[in-house]
Amino acid sequence: MSYTAPVKDMLFNMQHLAHIEQIAQIPGFEDAGLDTAAAVLEECARFTEGVLAPLNFEGDKNPSSWKDGVVTATPGFKDAFRQFTEGGWQGLQHPQDFGGQGLPKTIGAACTEMLNSANMSFALCPLLTDGAIEALLTAGSDELKAIYLEKLISGQWTGTMNLTEPQAGSDLALVRTRAEPQPDGTYKVFGTKIFITWGEHDMAENIVHLVLARVAGAPEGVKGISLFVVPKFLVNQDGSLGARNDAHCVSIEHKLGIKASPTAVLQFGDHGGAVGYLVGEENRGLEYMFIMMNAARYGVGMQGIAVAERAYQKAVQYARDRVQSRPVDGSINASAAIIHHPDVRRMLMTMRATTEGCRAMATVAAAAYDAAHHHPDAEVRKQNATFYEFMVPLVKGYSTEMSPEVASLGVQVHGGMGFIEETGAAQYYRDAKILTIYEGTTAIQANDLVGRKTARDGGQTARAIAAQIEKTEAELLASGTPAAKTVARRLAAARQAFLDVVDFVIGGAKVSPNAVFAGSVPYLLLAGKLVAGWQLARSLLVAEDLLPKGQDEAFLRAKITTAQFYAEHILVKAPGLRDSIVEGAASVTDLALDAF
Amino acid sequence: MSYTAPVKDMLFNMQHLAHIEQIAQIPGFEDAGLDTAAAVLEECARFTEGVLAPLNFEGDKNPSSWKDGVVTATPGFKDAFRQFTEGGWQGLQHPQDFGGQGLPKTIGAACTEMLNSANMSFALCPLLTDGAIEALLTAGSDELKAIYLEKLISGQWTGTMNLTEPQAGSDLALVRTRAEPQPDGTYKVFGTKIFITWGEHDMAENIVHLVLARVAGAPEGVKGISLFVVPKFLVNQDGSLGARNDAHCVSIEHKLGIKASPTAVLQFGDHGGAVGYLVGEENRGLEYMFIMMNAARYGVGMQGIAVAERAYQKAVQYARDRVQSRPVDGSINASAAIIHHPDVRRMLMTMRATTEGCRAMATVAAAAYDAAHHHPDAEVRKQNATFYEFMVPLVKGYSTEMSPEVASLGVQVHGGMGFIEETGAAQYYRDAKILTIYEGTTAIQANDLVGRKTARDGGQTARAIAAQIEKTEAELLASGTPAAKTVARRLAAARQAFLDVVDFVIGGAKVSPNAVFAGSVPYLLLAGKLVAGWQLARSLLVAEDLLPKGQDEAFLRAKITTAQFYAEHILVKAPGLRDSIVEGAASVTDLALDAF
Repeated sequence: MSYTAPVKDMLFNMQHLAHIEQIAQIPGFEDAGLDTAAAVLEECARFTEGVLAPLNFEGDKNPSSWKDGVVTATPGFKDAFRQFTEGGWQGLQHPQDFGGQGLPKTIGAACTEMLNSANMSFALCPLLTDGAIEALLTAGSDELKAIYLEKLISGQWTGTMNLTEPQAGSDLALVRTRAEPQPDGTYKVFGTKIFITWGEHDMAENIVHLVLARVAGAPEGVKGISLFVVPKFLVNQDGSLGARNDAHCVSIEHKLGIKASPTAVLQFGDHGGAVGYLVGEENRGLEYMFIMMNAARYGVGMQGIAVAERAYQKAVQYARDRVQSRPVDGSINASAAIIHHPDVRRMLMTMRATTEGCRAMATVAAAAYDAAHHHPDAEVRKQNATFYEFMVPLVKGYSTEMSPEVASLGVQVHGGMGFIEETGAAQYYRDAKILTIYEGTTAIQANDLVGRKTARDGGQTARAIAAQIEKTEAELLASGTPAAKTVARRLAAARQAFLDVVDFVIGGAKVSPNAVFAGSVPYLLLAGKLVAGWQLARSLLVAEDLLPKGQDEAFLRAKITTAQFYAEHILVKAPGLRDSIVEGAASVTDLALDAF
Repeated sequence: MSYTAPVKDMLFNMQHLAHIEQIAQIPGFEDAGLDTAAAVLEECARFTEGVLAPLNFEGDKNPSSWKDGVVTATPGFKDAFRQFTEGGWQGLQHPQDFGGQGLPKTIGAACTEMLNSANMSFALCPLLTDGAIEALLTAGSDELKAIYLEKLISGQWTGTMNLTEPQAGSDLALVRTRAEPQPDGTYKVFGTKIFITWGEHDMAENIVHLVLARVAGAPEGVKGISLFVVPKFLVNQDGSLGARNDAHCVSIEHKLGIKASPTAVLQFGDHGGAVGYLVGEENRGLEYMFIMMNAARYGVGMQGIAVAERAYQKAVQYARDRVQSRPVDGSINASAAIIHHPDVRRMLMTMRATTEGCRAMATVAAAAYDAAHHHPDAEVRKQNATFYEFMVPLVKGYSTEMSPEVASLGVQVHGGMGFIEETGAAQYYRDAKILTIYEGTTAIQANDLVGRKTARDGGQTARAIAAQIEKTEAELLASGTPAAKTVARRLAAARQAFLDVVDFVIGGAKVSPNAVFAGSVPYLLLAGKLVAGWQLARSLLVAEDLLPKGQDEAFLRAKITTAQFYAEHILVKAPGLRDSIVEGAASVTDLALDAF
């Protein structure tokens, strides 16, 4: 069950696809060049491989447990969390003003991947804390910032996101939790929140709940939702902990996966009201929540990549070790390790190519985020923001949809042993399935892609990306190697399919919304496949360029083969998706409701 | 967690696709017409819905357990098994000579589906018993038949298949269990068998293990394997039970799914040797085992369909009940049941169409089996045997590969609730994953399809099927309705893709086996999609024909929409698979071994 962080691949992406040296020219990121990245990644690899990865299977066998309102994390987790905070990992991407390290997302995202490959249940805790930090940084008053940010960024306290209620999942308009203003400017919060990840635990001194609730008299629907800080323990003026707040964990869920991460039902205000502090202004909660959500959505995409990577590594290990049957080509005249069998290779290559493709896509998106937030030139910021916003549903949606599929192949490579829990492959299959659901299901991501990211600007961003892809195709054709030409052909077909779908979306979004939204998830998958394949195509060009320079030949040749495999086995699905979306919408919604 | 057997769809398939009235003209099946089918299915529906289905979730929560060599089935299972045997369900398809009902597989397969939809863990026990019965019927001596068959067919005793050993999974050449001949004609069996489904339990008086082992001095590899009956309790001359045999369950596995079905590690001969009785002749064990395997492979395909059906029903129920968000077309000006959302419809239609397509394919295959085994005309028998043999890897391989995908969509429809074990959707996702593995992984099915079913006859059977499909296309075009024309177009493209791949397989099987086997699983999936889509296309024609006759309009219209959806969203993938197989083989196997 060991894990080896794919540092080489991550640095390759940062250097050659995301151009980290350009990010290091942005004021504030002067020290965030390739050398820094390499040093941080090596350190993170040591920590995640050595401390977190060995606890992953333990967390599955021995989940965090609830008793009388107290949640005790899996044995070993508390100590690991102490090491996590001591290493300063929580503050990696957060501002130095509040004790963080202020590193770019381009580097931070790689660390997020490692944490999640090593131990997704564990890594969920800092992921949610990141969201709380983002919300307070953006919308919190100076007072709230002063009280909470340093302790969240240091990891001394952790954060949560409280959106979901039994009747309000994807549909936040249905939120009923209410907040009553008090004379002292605080609020009393009453309600039940469910699915609160790390909503209660013993790893940190305090837990800072960020809670969506309605102030009495607020408008109905999402326009009447406000955001509150509701700490587990009230905080005294001097920063020390005060009374226990009226926010209690009444149970945790029994889940398919990520079992070490407690998923809490939180009861606010059953004993007089939970003290809450308004974040920003009343009725703007959804807006602030989206700040958290957008950070978390990217992070969940990384989780998809992370689980896929771990499943891939495990499958490769098993395929090297397990001896079964002779190779079909007669190359070995005895039973051989199953990695010699073509179908095992097909499965491993599918796992590998999908994972590397999504990683490359996410790395480029992270660089765009950094430029969008920190570049001195407003026009550059704007361009990058637009690109990043387009990428978020793809990183979240596509990387998580591929993740259970990759994990399923991982089980399959193990044969019967894969179905035995002690083997460990099944855990990834179970863990990965949450990723397409939380922080917005794939359909919610697809709605975002269709509505806010494609239709709203009339397809401008989508077409601009396609134009960039066309340039990569030209470079591939100019290279002229058989691999480059093959990739160019598949990339062009996928790009054309994408453009056809963009036209369909633009044309139909208003006049035939059912038809457009019937194809929204397939559109997201098509776009994800295209962008990931594009980044692997760029990788191929880089590898071809570096090969004669005598650098790591094995790595570069593998990159070329992986890009070609991706084009021939994954990108190749794009035209079929186009046909389903553009020509097959009616049969999605035609069936009479009674006939199901 | 209720289950409603899809009797109407099953009877539609039997009547209109499998032509059960023709089967009823075969001597011995005179009473097996549509009326009988309807009566049997109704009775089976009552039993499975009322008795087995309510125990399914219980079995997952409270698996069969092992203590000191004794396995106790999930509470309720023993009583359910008593009702199962009292109902005569074990003997449904077995010869009347030994107390069975002698019904055709066309009817029996539908009952197998119901049993497995209701409770797959439970249904595995009779499935394995079926295999043991088949082996003894074909290869057992009269004495073995006399001792064992009636009691297996009545369900008084159950059967198992003992193939796998720790070092011998897909590769039976590596079997080490040995059998030493004794002076009295019996053998003493020594060895360890793993993954033995229902290898030990308390539901029946005796367990009849069918065990692969090597007789001393036998040739190496698969040519030296013999098959033995090793009963848990020895049987006296008068049929009563004698001494406990030296075959003991030393542990059961902790599995991802099908938890109520105990998966045993069996130790043979640790206390002097387990008494075994040779089945047929020495060294022909693999041949006999294939008799069991072929029956079981079809049965596992039915399991895939069964789990998919159950997952579909559960998802539909949730989608009708769960209220969340307004429809995108503005048709309802308030939050609505999620079945109104196009992407939920897309997921439900994908689940439905795949399940119905595979069911139609499997029903037609079952009818071919009946004709192959019982038709008076030798030429008809041969044609049907050839067709059935081609279908077995498709029914097993495709119906099981689609099954976890359908179950995954089922979880997705449930959103966050799907990830909570109490909801029950996650169980199907876990249960289904074994199906692509046991009784031969998908890769093993694909090897069979490539080698024995396609290459061996030079593609003759494959092309004959394609020719039949072409006739259906002509009928669709003759119909001329928009739905029929759409289906015809997608079917023609898929058929052409299939033929291209058949040519590739025939051309390359000997000269470039790695390239052919790199595409073996995609070939299987393409062929499965094609044949299932073909059967739905035939269903569409039938439905169009019946509609003006005033029969069940809602059902027939749904059949047409489902066929169209299948064509536009699933068959449409065939050309992409063709490209991957025919043009993308090199990138599957090109990566250097060290580079993984």
